[in-house]
Amino acid sequence: MDFAARFAAMADGAAAAVHNGSAAGRIVLACEHASNTIPAAFDSLGLPPDVLQTHIAWDPGALALAKHLSDRLDAALVHQQFSRLIYDCNRPPEAPSAMPVRSEIYDIPGNADLSEAEKFWRTSRLYVPFHTRLAGQIDRVRANGQEPVLVTIHSFTPVYHGQPRQVQVGILHDADSRLADGMLTAAAGEEAYVIARNQPYAPTDGVTHTLRLHALPGGIPNVMIEVRNDLIADADGQTRMADCLARLLTAGLADLT
Amino acid sequence: MDFAARFAAMADGAAAAVHNGSAAGRIVLACEHASNTIPAAFDSLGLPPDVLQTHIAWDPGALALAKHLSDRLDAALVHQQFSRLIYDCNRPPEAPSAMPVRSEIYDIPGNADLSEAEKFWRTSRLYVPFHTRLAGQIDRVRANGQEPVLVTIHSFTPVYHGQPRQVQVGILHDADSRLADGMLTAAAGEEAYVIARNQPYAPTDGVTHTLRLHALPGGIPNVMIEVRNDLIADADGQTRMADCLARLLTAGLADLT
Repeated sequence: MDFAARFAAMADGAAAAVHNGSAAGRIVLACEHASNTIPAAFDSLGLPPDVLQTHIAWDPGALALAKHLSDRLDAALVHQQFSRLIYDCNRPPEAPSAMPVRSEIYDIPGNADLSEAEKFWRTSRLYVPFHTRLAGQIDRVRANGQEPVLVTIHSFTPVYHGQPRQVQVGILHDADSRLADGMLTAAAGEEAYVIARNQPYAPTDGVTHTLRLHALPGGIPNVMIEVRNDLIADADGQTRMADCLARLLTAGLADLT
Repeated sequence: MDFAARFAAMADGAAAAVHNGSAAGRIVLACEHASNTIPAAFDSLGLPPDVLQTHIAWDPGALALAKHLSDRLDAALVHQQFSRLIYDCNRPPEAPSAMPVRSEIYDIPGNADLSEAEKFWRTSRLYVPFHTRLAGQIDRVRANGQEPVLVTIHSFTPVYHGQPRQVQVGILHDADSRLADGMLTAAAGEEAYVIARNQPYAPTDGVTHTLRLHALPGGIPNVMIEVRNDLIADADGQTRMADCLARLLTAGLADLT
Protein backbone atom coordinates (compact mmCIF):
# COMPACT_ATOMS: atom_id res chain seq x y z
CA MET A 1 0.00 0.00 0.00
CA ASP A 2 1.32 3.44 -0.88
CA PHE A 3 0.83 5.29 2.36
CA ALA A 4 2.75 8.37 1.24
CA ALA A 5 0.28 8.92 -1.61
CA ARG A 6 -2.76 8.19 0.54
CA PHE A 7 -1.60 10.63 3.21
CA ALA A 8 -0.33 13.24 0.72
CA ALA A 9 -3.08 15.70 1.67
CA MET A 10 -1.64 15.76 5.20
CA ALA A 11 2.02 16.10 4.24
CA ASP A 12 4.28 18.76 5.73
CA GLY A 13 1.97 19.51 8.63
CA ALA A 14 -0.94 20.51 6.38
CA ALA A 15 -3.35 18.83 8.79
CA ALA A 16 -2.80 21.57 11.37
CA ALA A 17 -3.76 25.11 10.42
CA VAL A 18 -3.13 28.34 12.31
CA HIS A 19 -5.50 31.32 12.30
CA ASN A 20 -4.14 34.66 13.57
CA GLY A 21 -0.70 33.08 14.01
CA SER A 22 0.90 36.37 15.04
CA ALA A 23 -1.86 37.51 17.39
CA ALA A 24 -0.76 39.72 20.27
CA GLY A 25 -2.90 38.19 23.05
CA ARG A 26 -1.85 35.64 25.66
CA ILE A 27 -4.65 33.18 24.90
CA VAL A 28 -3.96 30.31 22.50
CA LEU A 29 -7.08 28.62 21.17
CA ALA A 30 -7.21 25.01 20.00
CA CYS A 31 -9.92 23.31 17.97
CA GLU A 32 -9.11 19.62 17.61
CA HIS A 33 -12.42 18.67 15.98
CA ALA A 34 -12.75 21.58 13.58
CA SER A 35 -13.24 19.63 10.38
CA ASN A 36 -15.16 16.68 8.97
CA THR A 37 -12.93 16.44 5.88
CA ILE A 38 -11.95 12.90 4.92
CA PRO A 39 -9.72 12.64 1.82
CA ALA A 40 -11.18 10.51 -0.98
CA ALA A 41 -8.46 7.89 -0.51
CA PHE A 42 -10.04 6.97 2.85
CA ASP A 43 -13.36 5.96 1.21
CA SER A 44 -15.36 7.86 3.86
CA LEU A 45 -14.10 5.24 6.34
CA GLY A 46 -17.03 3.16 5.11
CA LEU A 47 -19.64 5.61 6.45
CA PRO A 48 -22.61 7.11 4.57
CA PRO A 49 -22.40 10.83 3.74
CA ASP A 50 -25.10 11.91 6.21
CA VAL A 51 -23.24 10.34 9.13
CA LEU A 52 -20.15 12.34 8.18
CA GLN A 53 -22.18 15.50 8.75
CA THR A 54 -22.90 14.56 12.36
CA HIS A 55 -20.98 15.21 15.58
CA ILE A 56 -19.17 11.88 15.38
CA ALA A 57 -17.03 13.22 12.51
CA TRP A 58 -16.39 16.72 13.93
CA ASP A 59 -17.67 19.37 16.31
CA PRO A 60 -20.16 21.31 14.15
CA GLY A 61 -19.89 25.06 14.64
CA ALA A 62 -16.76 24.85 16.77
CA LEU A 63 -14.35 26.25 14.19
CA ALA A 64 -16.55 29.24 13.36
CA LEU A 65 -16.97 29.93 17.07
CA ALA A 66 -13.23 29.58 17.66
CA LYS A 67 -12.43 32.01 14.84
CA HIS A 68 -14.83 34.58 16.30
CA LEU A 69 -13.09 34.23 19.66
CA SER A 70 -9.69 34.41 18.00
CA ASP A 71 -10.62 37.71 16.39
CA ARG A 72 -12.35 39.19 19.48
CA LEU A 73 -9.55 38.20 21.89
CA ASP A 74 -6.59 38.73 19.52
CA ALA A 75 -5.66 35.09 20.13
CA ALA A 76 -3.90 32.59 17.87
CA LEU A 77 -5.99 29.55 16.95
CA VAL A 78 -4.65 26.12 15.95
CA HIS A 79 -7.23 23.91 14.25
CA GLN A 80 -7.27 20.47 12.69
CA GLN A 81 -8.13 20.23 8.99
CA PHE A 82 -9.34 16.60 8.95
CA SER A 83 -12.00 14.55 10.66
CA ARG A 84 -11.53 13.29 14.20
CA LEU A 85 -12.54 9.88 12.87
CA ILE A 86 -9.18 9.57 11.11
CA TYR A 87 -7.34 10.69 14.25
CA ASP A 88 -8.90 12.40 17.26
CA CYS A 89 -6.30 14.99 18.22
CA ASN A 90 -7.75 15.24 21.73
CA ARG A 91 -6.59 11.67 22.42
CA PRO A 92 -3.07 10.18 22.86
CA PRO A 93 -1.94 7.45 20.43
CA GLU A 94 -2.28 4.77 23.09
CA ALA A 95 -6.00 5.49 23.58
CA PRO A 96 -8.34 3.25 21.56
CA SER A 97 -10.54 6.33 21.05
CA ALA A 98 -7.77 8.05 19.06
CA MET A 99 -8.86 6.02 16.02
CA PRO A 100 -12.19 4.70 17.25
CA VAL A 101 -13.81 1.55 15.90
CA ARG A 102 -17.16 2.80 17.22
CA SER A 103 -18.56 6.26 18.02
CA GLU A 104 -21.89 6.64 19.81
CA ILE A 105 -24.27 4.46 17.78
CA TYR A 106 -22.07 4.00 14.73
CA ASP A 107 -19.47 1.39 13.86
CA ILE A 108 -16.58 2.87 11.84
CA PRO A 109 -15.69 0.20 9.26
CA GLY A 110 -12.59 2.08 8.07
CA ASN A 111 -11.14 1.99 11.58
CA ALA A 112 -11.57 -1.74 12.20
CA ASP A 113 -8.38 -3.77 12.60
CA LEU A 114 -6.02 -0.93 11.71
CA SER A 115 -2.49 -2.05 10.86
CA GLU A 116 0.49 -0.68 12.76
CA ALA A 117 1.46 1.14 9.56
CA GLU A 118 -1.95 2.81 9.25
CA LYS A 119 -1.79 3.95 12.87
CA PHE A 120 1.74 5.28 12.39
CA TRP A 121 0.77 7.36 9.38
CA ARG A 122 -2.34 8.78 11.06
CA THR A 123 -0.41 9.61 14.21
CA SER A 124 2.51 11.19 12.39
CA ARG A 125 0.49 13.17 9.85
CA LEU A 126 -2.45 14.31 12.02
CA TYR A 127 -1.65 14.15 15.74
CA VAL A 128 2.00 15.14 15.91
CA PRO A 129 1.87 18.22 13.63
CA PHE A 130 -1.26 19.52 15.38
CA HIS A 131 0.29 19.41 18.82
CA THR A 132 3.71 20.51 17.63
CA ARG A 133 2.10 23.60 16.12
CA LEU A 134 0.05 24.22 19.25
CA ALA A 135 3.19 23.94 21.41
CA GLY A 136 4.86 26.40 19.03
CA GLN A 137 2.09 28.97 19.48
CA ILE A 138 2.27 28.62 23.25
CA ASP A 139 6.05 29.10 23.08
CA ARG A 140 5.56 32.17 20.88
CA VAL A 141 3.32 33.82 23.48
CA ARG A 142 5.90 33.09 26.17
CA ALA A 143 8.70 34.43 23.97
CA ASN A 144 6.66 37.63 23.67
CA GLY A 145 6.92 38.01 27.43
CA GLN A 146 3.39 36.93 28.35
CA GLU A 147 2.13 33.97 30.38
CA PRO A 148 0.20 31.82 27.92
CA VAL A 149 -3.37 30.63 28.48
CA LEU A 150 -4.79 27.59 26.68
CA VAL A 151 -8.46 27.44 25.70
CA THR A 152 -9.89 24.52 23.71
CA ILE A 153 -13.18 24.89 21.83
CA HIS A 154 -15.57 21.99 21.34
CA SER A 155 -19.23 21.38 20.57
CA PHE A 156 -21.49 18.54 21.66
CA THR A 157 -24.64 16.99 20.31
CA PRO A 158 -28.02 18.00 21.83
CA VAL A 159 -29.10 14.33 21.91
CA TYR A 160 -26.68 11.54 22.86
CA HIS A 161 -27.69 7.90 22.84
CA GLY A 162 -31.26 9.16 22.62
CA GLN A 163 -31.02 11.37 25.72
CA PRO A 164 -31.59 15.14 25.33
CA ARG A 165 -29.03 17.28 27.12
CA GLN A 166 -30.17 20.31 29.08
CA VAL A 167 -26.77 21.89 29.59
CA GLN A 168 -25.89 24.42 26.88
CA VAL A 169 -22.32 25.41 27.72
CA GLY A 170 -19.82 23.28 29.63
CA ILE A 171 -16.79 24.81 31.33
CA LEU A 172 -14.42 21.86 31.74
CA HIS A 173 -11.16 21.56 33.62
CA ASP A 174 -8.72 18.92 34.76
CA ALA A 175 -6.54 19.31 37.87
CA ASP A 176 -6.12 23.07 37.33
CA SER A 177 -9.52 24.74 37.76
CA ARG A 178 -8.34 28.36 38.17
CA LEU A 179 -9.61 29.74 34.87
CA ALA A 180 -12.76 27.60 34.93
CA ASP A 181 -13.56 28.83 38.45
CA GLY A 182 -13.33 32.45 37.37
CA MET A 183 -15.44 31.84 34.29
CA LEU A 184 -18.11 30.04 36.29
CA THR A 185 -18.26 32.88 38.79
CA ALA A 186 -18.78 35.29 35.91
CA ALA A 187 -21.33 32.92 34.35
CA ALA A 188 -23.71 33.61 37.23
CA GLY A 189 -24.40 36.90 35.48
CA GLU A 190 -25.27 35.30 32.12
CA GLU A 191 -29.00 34.78 31.66
CA ALA A 192 -28.87 33.55 28.08
CA TYR A 193 -27.41 30.09 28.55
CA VAL A 194 -27.40 27.12 30.91
CA ILE A 195 -23.73 26.96 31.87
CA ALA A 196 -22.27 24.16 34.01
CA ARG A 197 -18.96 22.82 35.32
CA ASN A 198 -17.54 19.65 33.75
CA GLN A 199 -20.64 18.83 31.70
CA PRO A 200 -21.55 16.98 29.54
CA TYR A 201 -18.07 15.45 29.91
CA ALA A 202 -15.53 15.39 32.71
CA PRO A 203 -11.79 14.65 32.89
CA THR A 204 -12.61 11.05 33.82
CA ASP A 205 -14.01 10.65 30.29
CA GLY A 206 -10.50 11.15 28.91
CA VAL A 207 -11.38 14.40 27.17
CA THR A 208 -8.66 16.64 28.62
CA HIS A 209 -5.68 15.27 26.69
CA THR A 210 -4.83 18.61 25.06
CA LEU A 211 -4.90 20.34 28.45
CA ARG A 212 -2.69 17.63 29.97
CA LEU A 213 -0.27 17.87 27.07
CA HIS A 214 0.26 21.60 26.92
CA ALA A 215 -1.07 23.30 30.02
CA LEU A 216 -0.84 21.14 33.15
CA PRO A 217 2.91 20.34 33.05
CA GLY A 218 3.94 24.01 32.90
CA GLY A 219 1.16 25.36 35.11
CA ILE A 220 -0.43 27.29 32.24
CA PRO A 221 -3.98 28.46 33.03
CA ASN A 222 -6.40 26.52 30.86
CA VAL A 223 -9.99 25.58 30.16
CA MET A 224 -11.97 23.40 27.78
CA ILE A 225 -15.21 24.87 26.50
CA GLU A 226 -18.03 22.65 25.25
CA VAL A 227 -21.00 24.28 23.49
CA ARG A 228 -24.21 22.49 22.50
CA ASN A 229 -24.01 22.50 18.75
CA ASP A 230 -27.64 23.54 18.04
CA LEU A 231 -26.76 26.91 19.58
CA ILE A 232 -23.93 27.58 17.12
CA ALA A 233 -25.49 26.15 13.96
CA ASP A 234 -25.66 29.52 12.22
CA ALA A 235 -23.81 32.82 12.10
CA ASP A 236 -26.17 34.57 14.54
CA GLY A 237 -25.80 31.81 17.11
CA GLN A 238 -22.03 31.76 16.70
CA THR A 239 -21.77 35.52 17.14
CA ARG A 240 -23.93 35.54 20.27
CA MET A 241 -22.06 32.60 21.80
CA ALA A 242 -18.71 34.21 21.00
CA ASP A 243 -19.83 37.41 22.73
CA CYS A 244 -20.79 35.46 25.84
CA LEU A 245 -17.62 33.33 25.94
CA ALA A 246 -15.37 36.32 25.30
CA ARG A 247 -16.97 38.01 28.33
CA LEU A 248 -16.50 34.91 30.50
CA LEU A 249 -12.89 34.42 29.39
CA THR A 250 -12.03 38.06 29.93
CA ALA A 251 -13.57 37.95 33.41
CA GLY A 252 -11.86 34.65 34.21
CA LEU A 253 -8.48 35.99 33.16
CA ALA A 254 -8.96 39.16 35.18
CA ASP A 255 -9.71 36.95 38.19
CA LEU A 256 -6.42 35.07 37.73
CA THR A 257 -4.22 38.09 38.33
CA MET B 1 8.21 22.04 32.49
CA ASP B 2 9.98 23.31 29.38
CA PHE B 3 9.72 20.33 27.06
CA ALA B 4 11.05 22.16 24.03
CA ALA B 5 14.33 22.86 25.82
CA ARG B 6 14.59 19.35 27.26
CA PHE B 7 14.02 17.79 23.84
CA ALA B 8 16.14 20.32 21.96
CA ALA B 9 18.80 17.70 21.13
CA MET B 10 16.15 15.82 19.15
CA ALA B 11 14.69 18.81 17.31
CA ASP B 12 14.20 18.84 13.55
CA GLY B 13 14.52 15.09 13.18
CA ALA B 14 18.04 14.99 14.67
CA ALA B 15 17.17 11.73 16.44
CA ALA B 16 17.19 9.85 13.13
CA ALA B 17 20.43 9.75 11.14
CA VAL B 18 21.05 8.41 7.65
CA HIS B 19 24.28 6.74 6.55
CA ASN B 20 24.84 6.34 2.78
CA GLY B 21 21.65 8.23 2.09
CA SER B 22 22.16 8.16 -1.66
CA ALA B 23 23.25 4.53 -1.92
CA ALA B 24 22.45 2.78 -5.21
CA GLY B 25 21.33 -0.60 -3.82
CA ARG B 26 17.78 -1.80 -3.22
CA ILE B 27 18.32 -2.75 0.41
CA VAL B 28 17.41 -0.24 3.12
CA LEU B 29 18.92 -1.00 6.52
CA ALA B 30 17.39 0.10 9.81
CA CYS B 31 19.02 0.16 13.23
CA GLU B 32 16.48 1.19 15.84
CA HIS B 33 18.70 0.51 18.86
CA ALA B 34 21.94 1.98 17.53
CA SER B 35 22.71 4.33 20.39
CA ASN B 36 22.76 4.48 24.18
CA THR B 37 22.90 8.27 24.25
CA ILE B 38 20.65 9.90 26.84
CA PRO B 39 20.78 13.71 26.93
CA ALA B 40 21.79 15.18 30.29
CA ALA B 41 18.33 16.65 30.79
CA PHE B 42 16.95 13.12 31.23
CA ASP B 43 19.16 12.44 34.28
CA SER B 44 20.14 8.99 32.97
CA LEU B 45 16.49 8.01 33.53
CA GLY B 46 17.59 7.34 37.09
CA LEU B 47 19.94 4.48 36.08
CA PRO B 48 23.60 4.04 37.08
CA PRO B 49 26.20 4.55 34.31
CA ASP B 50 27.17 0.86 34.03
CA VAL B 51 23.58 -0.17 33.32
CA LEU B 52 23.47 2.33 30.47
CA GLN B 53 26.30 0.41 28.83
CA THR B 54 24.26 -2.80 28.74
CA HIS B 55 21.84 -4.19 26.15
CA ILE B 56 18.85 -2.68 27.90
CA ALA B 57 19.90 0.79 26.70
CA TRP B 58 20.91 -0.19 23.14
CA ASP B 59 22.07 -3.05 20.93
CA PRO B 60 25.87 -3.02 21.42
CA GLY B 61 27.75 -3.52 18.14
CA ALA B 62 24.65 -3.24 15.97
CA LEU B 63 25.43 0.18 14.51
CA ALA B 64 29.00 -0.75 13.55
CA LEU B 65 27.74 -3.97 11.98
CA ALA B 66 24.99 -2.11 10.12
CA LYS B 67 27.48 0.42 8.75
CA HIS B 68 29.71 -2.39 7.46
CA LEU B 69 26.69 -3.92 5.72
CA SER B 70 25.66 -0.54 4.37
CA ASP B 71 29.09 -0.09 2.79
CA ARG B 72 29.39 -3.69 1.50
CA LEU B 73 25.87 -3.78 0.02
CA ASP B 74 25.67 -0.14 -1.15
CA ALA B 75 22.60 0.21 1.03
CA ALA B 76 21.20 3.25 2.85
CA LEU B 77 21.05 2.92 6.63
CA VAL B 78 18.68 4.78 8.97
CA HIS B 79 19.74 4.68 12.61
CA GLN B 80 18.47 6.14 15.85
CA GLN B 81 20.76 8.53 17.74
CA PHE B 82 19.27 8.08 21.23
CA SER B 83 18.70 5.24 23.66
CA ARG B 84 15.80 2.86 23.22
CA LEU B 85 15.02 3.53 26.87
CA ILE B 86 13.74 6.99 25.97
CA TYR B 87 11.70 5.59 23.07
CA ASP B 88 12.10 2.13 21.54
CA CYS B 89 11.65 2.79 17.83
CA ASN B 90 10.81 -0.87 17.22
CA ARG B 91 7.58 -0.45 19.18
CA PRO B 92 4.37 1.49 18.39
CA PRO B 93 3.27 4.28 20.77
CA GLU B 94 0.43 2.17 22.15
CA ALA B 95 2.85 -0.55 23.35
CA PRO B 96 3.90 -0.22 27.01
CA SER B 97 7.37 -1.41 25.90
CA ALA B 98 7.83 1.73 23.76
CA MET B 99 8.78 3.60 26.95
CA PRO B 100 9.33 0.68 29.31
CA VAL B 101 9.05 0.98 33.09
CA ARG B 102 11.12 -2.21 33.38
CA SER B 103 13.65 -3.96 31.11
CA GLU B 104 14.91 -7.46 31.95
CA ILE B 105 16.06 -7.16 35.58
CA TYR B 106 16.08 -3.36 35.82
CA ASP B 107 13.40 -0.90 36.81
CA ILE B 108 13.63 2.35 34.83
CA PRO B 109 12.82 5.10 37.33
CA GLY B 110 12.76 7.82 34.65
CA ASN B 111 10.00 5.96 32.79
CA ALA B 112 7.66 5.48 35.74
CA ASP B 113 4.31 7.27 35.54
CA LEU B 114 5.11 9.22 32.39
CA SER B 115 2.77 12.13 31.72
CA GLU B 116 0.83 12.37 28.47
CA ALA B 117 3.04 15.34 27.60
CA GLU B 118 6.25 13.38 28.15
CA LYS B 119 4.98 10.56 25.97
CA PHE B 120 3.95 13.01 23.24
CA TRP B 121 7.39 14.62 23.12
CA ARG B 122 9.22 11.31 23.06
CA THR B 123 6.93 9.96 20.35
CA SER B 124 7.12 13.06 18.20
CA ARG B 125 10.86 13.68 18.54
CA LEU B 126 12.17 10.08 18.44
CA TYR B 127 9.67 7.66 16.91
CA VAL B 128 8.01 9.70 14.18
CA PRO B 129 11.18 11.19 12.58
CA PHE B 130 12.92 7.80 12.60
CA HIS B 131 10.14 6.05 10.73
CA THR B 132 9.40 9.01 8.49
CA ARG B 133 13.05 8.99 7.39
CA LEU B 134 13.01 5.22 6.92
CA ALA B 135 9.85 5.49 4.79
CA GLY B 136 11.61 8.20 2.80
CA GLN B 137 14.59 5.96 2.06
CA ILE B 138 12.30 3.13 0.97
CA ASP B 139 10.45 5.57 -1.31
CA ARG B 140 13.77 6.77 -2.75
CA VAL B 141 14.74 3.22 -3.74
CA ARG B 142 11.35 2.77 -5.40
CA ALA B 143 11.68 6.12 -7.18
CA ASN B 144 15.01 4.85 -8.54
CA GLY B 145 13.11 2.04 -10.24
CA GLN B 146 14.04 -0.78 -7.85
CA GLU B 147 11.91 -2.92 -5.56
CA PRO B 148 13.03 -2.01 -2.02
CA VAL B 149 14.13 -4.57 0.56
CA LEU B 150 14.05 -3.83 4.30
CA VAL B 151 16.65 -5.31 6.66
CA THR B 152 16.73 -4.42 10.35
CA ILE B 153 19.90 -4.99 12.39
CA HIS B 154 19.80 -5.88 16.08
CA SER B 155 21.99 -7.49 18.71
CA PHE B 156 21.02 -9.53 21.76
CA THR B 157 22.64 -10.29 25.07
CA PRO B 158 24.46 -13.65 25.51
CA VAL B 159 22.82 -14.11 28.92
CA TYR B 160 19.19 -13.16 29.55
CA HIS B 161 17.55 -13.50 32.96
CA GLY B 162 20.56 -15.64 33.89
CA GLN B 163 20.14 -18.08 31.00
CA PRO B 164 22.98 -18.39 28.44
CA ARG B 165 21.84 -18.36 24.82
CA GLN B 166 23.36 -20.85 22.37
CA VAL B 167 22.04 -19.25 19.20
CA GLN B 168 24.48 -16.76 17.68
CA VAL B 169 22.54 -15.29 14.75
CA GLY B 170 18.77 -15.09 14.50
CA ILE B 171 17.02 -14.65 11.15
CA LEU B 172 13.59 -13.30 12.10
CA HIS B 173 10.50 -12.74 10.03
CA ASP B 174 6.84 -11.94 10.45
CA ALA B 175 4.16 -13.08 7.98
CA ASP B 176 6.48 -12.68 4.97
CA SER B 177 9.31 -15.22 5.28
CA ARG B 178 10.61 -15.08 1.68
CA LEU B 179 13.93 -13.38 2.35
CA ALA B 180 14.46 -15.22 5.65
CA ASP B 181 13.84 -18.55 3.93
CA GLY B 182 16.50 -17.84 1.32
CA MET B 183 18.98 -16.67 3.92
CA LEU B 184 18.41 -19.75 6.07
CA THR B 185 18.93 -22.01 3.07
CA ALA B 186 22.22 -20.25 2.40
CA ALA B 187 23.09 -20.43 6.12
CA ALA B 188 23.40 -24.21 5.86
CA GLY B 189 26.76 -23.53 4.21
CA GLU B 190 28.04 -21.30 7.03
CA GLU B 191 30.16 -23.20 9.54
CA ALA B 192 31.23 -20.22 11.62
CA TYR B 193 27.99 -19.42 13.43
CA VAL B 194 24.94 -21.05 14.98
CA ILE B 195 22.15 -19.53 12.88
CA ALA B 196 18.46 -20.10 13.61
CA ARG B 197 15.00 -18.99 12.51
CA ASN B 198 13.04 -16.66 14.80
CA GLN B 199 15.45 -16.90 17.73
CA PRO B 200 15.97 -15.63 20.36
CA TYR B 201 12.78 -13.67 19.63
CA ALA B 202 9.78 -14.29 17.45
CA PRO B 203 7.01 -12.07 16.04
CA THR B 204 4.82 -13.05 18.99
CA ASP B 205 7.27 -11.11 21.20
CA GLY B 206 6.20 -7.90 19.44
CA VAL B 207 9.63 -7.32 17.91
CA THR B 208 8.61 -6.93 14.27
CA HIS B 209 7.02 -3.49 14.44
CA THR B 210 9.41 -1.93 11.92
CA LEU B 211 8.74 -4.75 9.45
CA ARG B 212 4.97 -4.39 9.95
CA LEU B 213 5.21 -0.64 9.49
CA HIS B 214 7.26 -0.46 6.31
CA ALA B 215 7.47 -3.85 4.62
CA LEU B 216 4.39 -6.01 5.14
CA PRO B 217 1.72 -3.55 3.88
CA GLY B 218 3.44 -3.08 0.50
CA GLY B 219 4.76 -6.63 0.13
CA ILE B 220 8.38 -5.48 0.41
CA PRO B 221 10.80 -8.36 1.07
CA ASN B 222 12.16 -8.01 4.57
CA VAL B 223 14.06 -9.61 7.40
CA MET B 224 15.15 -8.80 10.95
CA ILE B 225 18.65 -9.92 11.89
CA GLU B 226 19.60 -10.52 15.53
CA VAL B 227 23.30 -11.08 16.37
CA ARG B 228 24.61 -12.15 19.78
CA ASN B 229 26.48 -9.09 20.92
CA ASP B 230 29.61 -10.85 22.21
CA LEU B 231 30.36 -11.76 18.60
CA ILE B 232 30.39 -8.13 17.43
CA ALA B 233 32.07 -6.52 20.43
CA ASP B 234 35.18 -5.52 18.45
CA ALA B 235 36.14 -4.51 14.93
CA ASP B 236 37.32 -8.01 13.95
CA GLY B 237 34.09 -9.60 15.06
CA GLN B 238 32.03 -6.94 13.31
CA THR B 239 33.95 -7.42 10.06
CA ARG B 240 33.60 -11.19 10.11
CA MET B 241 29.92 -11.03 10.93
CA ALA B 242 29.32 -8.43 8.20
CA ASP B 243 31.04 -10.72 5.69
CA CYS B 244 28.78 -13.61 6.67
CA LEU B 245 25.56 -11.57 6.69
CA ALA B 246 26.38 -9.91 3.36
CA ARG B 247 26.77 -13.40 1.86
CA LEU B 248 23.45 -14.55 3.33
CA LEU B 249 21.60 -11.43 2.22
CA THR B 250 23.04 -11.59 -1.29
CA ALA B 251 22.08 -15.25 -1.56
CA GLY B 252 18.64 -14.59 -0.11
CA LEU B 253 17.99 -11.77 -2.57
CA ALA B 254 19.16 -13.90 -5.50
CA ASP B 255 16.67 -16.55 -4.38
CA LEU B 256 13.81 -14.04 -4.44
CA THR B 257 14.02 -13.39 -8.16
